[in-house]
Amino acid sequence: MEIKVVRKVLDVNDTMAAQNRQMFADVFVLNLMSSPGSGKTTLLERTLERIAPEVKSAVIVGDICTSNDADRLSKSGAPVVQVNTDEFGGDCHLAAHVIATAAGDIDLTGIDLLIVENVGNLVCPAEFDIGEDARAVVLSVTEGEDKPAKYPLMFRVCDAAVLNKIDLLPHLDYDRDAVLGHIDGVHPGMPVFEVSARTGDGLDPWLDWLRERIAAKRAGKGPAAVDRG
Amino acid sequence: MEIKVVRKVLDVNDTMAAQNRQMFADVFVLNLMSSPGSGKTTLLERTLERIAPEVKSAVIVGDICTSNDADRLSKSGAPVVQVNTDEFGGDCHLAAHVIATAAGDIDLTGIDLLIVENVGNLVCPAEFDIGEDARAVVLSVTEGEDKPAKYPLMFRVCDAAVLNKIDLLPHLDYDRDAVLGHIDGVHPGMPVFEVSARTGDGLDPWLDWLRERIAAKRAGKGPAAVDRG
Repeated sequence: MEIKVVRKVLDVNDTMAAQNRQMFADVFVLNLMSSPGSGKTTLLERTLERIAPEVKSAVIVGDICTSNDADRLSKSGAPVVQVNTDEFGGDCHLAAHVIATAAGDIDLTGIDLLIVENVGNLVCPAEFDIGEDARAVVLSVTEGEDKPAKYPLMFRVCDAAVLNKIDLLPHLDYDRDAVLGHIDGVHPGMPVFEVSARTGDGLDPWLDWLRERIAAKRAGKGPAAVDRG
Repeated sequence: MEIKVVRKVLDVNDTMAAQNRQMFADVFVLNLMSSPGSGKTTLLERTLERIAPEVKSAVIVGDICTSNDADRLSKSGAPVVQVNTDEFGGDCHLAAHVIATAAGDIDLTGIDLLIVENVGNLVCPAEFDIGEDARAVVLSVTEGEDKPAKYPLMFRVCDAAVLNKIDLLPHLDYDRDAVLGHIDGVHPGMPVFEVSARTGDGLDPWLDWLRERIAAKRAGKGPAAVDRG
């Protein structure tokens, strides 16, 4: 019974996501997901700083409670909308209808890039299409090497992985080949960007990937939605 | 509609949890929760090593996929049952009926302590009573200071917090007073154990807390279930 109901909720979500995709016809939308505390907000701070001169951006931030992340990101000058899911019973993900409402609060005219910072959760957000063009997962090296094997759906539905906090590697027992092997095992060939959002190290390839996707969307070559099956 | 259905699922879960509580009349059950990669398994390895001489333990480990954690924990000599929630559609938490089945695979005779290592997720597991006597949340210092404010339900339903990976503090910009303030803000007076599961630093107060709770359960003074509201 439970499974049937969940399927119905996901079907409704997919319909809303398709509507969002029409609303986002002229803006590249990135769905950024991760565990709590893996550094999504710091990565976005650095990303917005670096691409501001060439790319006009906006952000939707999801959290169960607080506006901490929106407060940090609004310093970038980009319009930021905070969604608190405790208004919907403490939801563990952002659903398409929530994104539709939040995006309605942003003037999307002239916006090239809309980043959605999802609720910190490596499980549930992977199941909910929000009408995005691309998905990226942030994994911090402090979380260990085996998370892609343990949470395969997240790594399967994403188009890129950002391996964050590499500045801490000298202080960890970390097997870089193991994590890259796990990622390749669940999503062969997916690009992995090894960065320190704190120091800014390694950001260029990530920014180039983002720029290419934004340019492809502008040129009308955006990808279709990935089946999360 | 969605909310009503979720309520029904939680009601069924509460009934199953009450049945589990009868099955666990003579064993102290700890539900250990956290984000992915905060160090639950390493904490359990150290905990089992240290209390093995005096406390007979068993473990149920929940993951979406892999038996990595069970493989690590079974080296302790304690009986370990791995639950993979991908058999139930990739569930983001352990529900009471899953625990009932898993516990059925363990001979509980003479077991003093049953630890349930929940799925790595700081949101959903907080909503599901599994018939435990106590709940603890592990938060690693690499996850930042504000997680208790952002994920308040988890910290509200728990009886203790373990602040892990303190060996990394010299390499982080971390405000210890801030995290303690956030924890106290959502759950005033909850004990916080600052440890490094990797080095073994700070484990004694955590082990003492556990020993006291096990002894209280033996003496028939176990606490009632906490309302998760």
